Amino acid sequence: MLAREVWLLGSQSGSAPQTSTRESTLLSPILARSRRSAVDNFPFVQVDELDLRLDDSAASFEEMHFELVSTDLMSRARRGRLETAHGTIDTPVFMPVGTQGTVKATTPSELSEVGAQVILGNTYHLFLRPGLDVIRECGGLHRFMGWNRPILTDSGGFQVFSLSKLRRITEEGVHFNSHIDGAPCFLSPEVSMQIQDTLGSDIFMAFDECPPYPCERAYAEASLERTLRWAHRCRGWTEKQLQGKPRLVFGIVQGGVYRELREKSALGLVNLDFDGYAIGGVSVGEPEAEMMRAIDNSEPFLPKDKPRYAMGLGTPPQLVEMVARGVDMFDCVLPTRLARNGTAFTAAGTINLKNAEHKTDQRPITEGCACSTCQSFSRAYIRHLIKAEEILGLRLITIHNLHFYLHLMRQIRDALEAGTFPEFRERFVANYARYEPDAETP
Amino acid sequence: MLAREVWLLGSQSGSAPQTSTRESTLLSPILARSRRSAVDNFPFVQVDELDLRLDDSAASFEEMHFELVSTDLMSRARRGRLETAHGTIDTPVFMPVGTQGTVKATTPSELSEVGAQVILGNTYHLFLRPGLDVIRECGGLHRFMGWNRPILTDSGGFQVFSLSKLRRITEEGVHFNSHIDGAPCFLSPEVSMQIQDTLGSDIFMAFDECPPYPCERAYAEASLERTLRWAHRCRGWTEKQLQGKPRLVFGIVQGGVYRELREKSALGLVNLDFDGYAIGGVSVGEPEAEMMRAIDNSEPFLPKDKPRYAMGLGTPPQLVEMVARGVDMFDCVLPTRLARNGTAFTAAGTINLKNAEHKTDQRPITEGCACSTCQSFSRAYIRHLIKAEEILGLRLITIHNLHFYLHLMRQIRDALEAGTFPEFRERFVANYARYEPDAETP
Repeated sequence: MLAREVWLLGSQSGSAPQTSTRESTLLSPILARSRRSAVDNFPFVQVDELDLRLDDSAASFEEMHFELVSTDLMSRARRGRLETAHGTIDTPVFMPVGTQGTVKATTPSELSEVGAQVILGNTYHLFLRPGLDVIRECGGLHRFMGWNRPILTDSGGFQVFSLSKLRRITEEGVHFNSHIDGAPCFLSPEVSMQIQDTLGSDIFMAFDECPPYPCERAYAEASLERTLRWAHRCRGWTEKQLQGKPRLVFGIVQGGVYRELREKSALGLVNLDFDGYAIGGVSVGEPEAEMMRAIDNSEPFLPKDKPRYAMGLGTPPQLVEMVARGVDMFDCVLPTRLARNGTAFTAAGTINLKNAEHKTDQRPITEGCACSTCQSFSRAYIRHLIKAEEILGLRLITIHNLHFYLHLMRQIRDALEAGTFPEFRERFVANYARYEPDAETP
Repeated sequence: MLAREVWLLGSQSGSAPQTSTRESTLLSPILARSRRSAVDNFPFVQVDELDLRLDDSAASFEEMHFELVSTDLMSRARRGRLETAHGTIDTPVFMPVGTQGTVKATTPSELSEVGAQVILGNTYHLFLRPGLDVIRECGGLHRFMGWNRPILTDSGGFQVFSLSKLRRITEEGVHFNSHIDGAPCFLSPEVSMQIQDTLGSDIFMAFDECPPYPCERAYAEASLERTLRWAHRCRGWTEKQLQGKPRLVFGIVQGGVYRELREKSALGLVNLDFDGYAIGGVSVGEPEAEMMRAIDNSEPFLPKDKPRYAMGLGTPPQLVEMVARGVDMFDCVLPTRLARNGTAFTAAGTINLKNAEHKTDQRPITEGCACSTCQSFSRAYIRHLIKAEEILGLRLITIHNLHFYLHLMRQIRDALEAGTFPEFRERFVANYARYEPDAETP
């Protein structure tokens, strides 16, 4: 509670009136010289002369960059590398979701074992609980949770709009009530950046409004314009406050299902020269075709030398299709959330281990799978654990599902390096049955 | 369901009428020649001439025995070794409880890491779910759950009396309704033995009635007499059916708070020459003094060359005190159950990690503790996980608590070997605050 109150004070009486001041920092030399056009820098980030003139601390920040290793000839798929303060991320990458300072039911060493390179932390959740005083005193999120690889933090925007009650959006930010105890809270671009800074995030996300689906054009446009102004303020805050700190900041493209709005949003963000670009407002209940269209309507306007991140997606074939559309980064709760319902991912689609057909099945979830679950436990045993509501059951499926997602991304990267991505894509998507999360027979 | 029906048929139409036949096997040569008095065999099991005449398979069974390594001069404490088909158990030993085919929230490899030598499986629970057809088809409980060290199974008696509804006790056995779905079930001495055989248990417990606390003398006496007759039938079944199988069978002393009844029960069981003796009817709500008295009233009548097992106990100082009273084996749900409530064991007593004092405490639960939780995670982080109801929180405390119990038993064994048990006992019990499971400050 204390943490929240401190931030409330900080943002309402402190940050808010300074907005215009902060916006002026957007014209600072650092930002101006780091602006590059998308075309100039393709296919590799160029270390230009201006970078060499930065001081040491700023240089360490500038050293971090995205490198395109190879691109697919038949699609927009890319194999890349993103440098962060906590290590290099090979892309395309899947980021397990660590909502409350833990990827549900797993330890950091288990995450390393299944091949996680980077995880996502939730600004909204960690802001409310344990609160920033705790995280700060414990030395940041990496140290708090014992994870020493990269962390990307979201902006809190999505949760404010999906979880909290009684929210009120103003130009300044969003007033809302905590979904935990109803306490009044406030998030703004500056507060979101401050929180992500306190968390010690490697990759900050700009504070955005994520409109619902469906959403009328007029609202979508007004919302994305506000999100652009908020992105401006985020960029202002980070340029000033993160000078020399090895942090990356990503903008978020909004615009709903409207092609021109996606373009407008993307171009507006690119003008602010973020370190990467997310495509938001997807996975909010829209049909898969709309989701793909949102990517198709945004991606062409994003610089090729910066990573692209599709937020909150998706099923395994969706990931493959998004990679083919030029997306480099993904996060999704499906592998961990479905595990808790007894659902496991396989190359032929999901299976629900509660089903009677697995009752005495002594095979692992997937023959030949290298995960620790498939090395040691049968479908029959896992089914028993899930039916008996034993925690070990969801633990074992969580490990398998995360391994499946992370292994899929490894396969994609290998195929891109080998120049065989088109074949891999066709084969994988054809093999994978349509995703049916609710399929369960007695 | 199928499994239960099969067993119902087996027990009601098959086993039941054969009771008298089976009892007659108690007079078989095998049982007769394996009878030894407690005194004759102290302090070590003697391989007598009769054993040499057994055939090979029977010999492998007879080879398993309990060996007293050393005894304490100041108390009845003993350091021993119990041989089973799945390896040697060093006693005094604590057995983590794997009620439903898993020690809650842990993997077998984690159990090995914290030093578990043997775990307990619950006949009643596994009989109801997943059912014996599943366990049988999956090759027994060891293979089903991936645990290749010893397993002791209880008889189902305790759960029938504590969990199930509408039970009806007859001389033949107990009719009851499943606590899961109300399905009518039946357990008898023979059925319990059959189930434990199907589970592939290393140590069978005889089927007993566990009377409640308090319990009038007349009922306690009638109950223990029936339990003795049931023990007779268990011994008959195992002598006939387990011939040559490397299994141990323990009897259970009952008799409530009545000294003469405990003596009567113990002597009656010893006459059946079990491989070990449990003291039951403890940890059923009685005061600690009564619990200790139940041990004191039973132990003197048990052979010194057989292991003694206090069922369902206890707190760390209770374990130390029970060891001093001659008990070798323990099982208890406290370390796993309290972990789920945020309670951790330390040498100074339990602490509740939900408490505000741990909010920013960056120390581990116990400084210097070798468990994986204390090696990597702070009290502040674990408190956050428990408050946020994250599974990792209870996982981390479970590991620490099991490590604490198993490390305590290692310390006891080391002290017994070094001849320093009296000092260890005094110091440990003095340091350990009184157990307060419900202590929690806001």
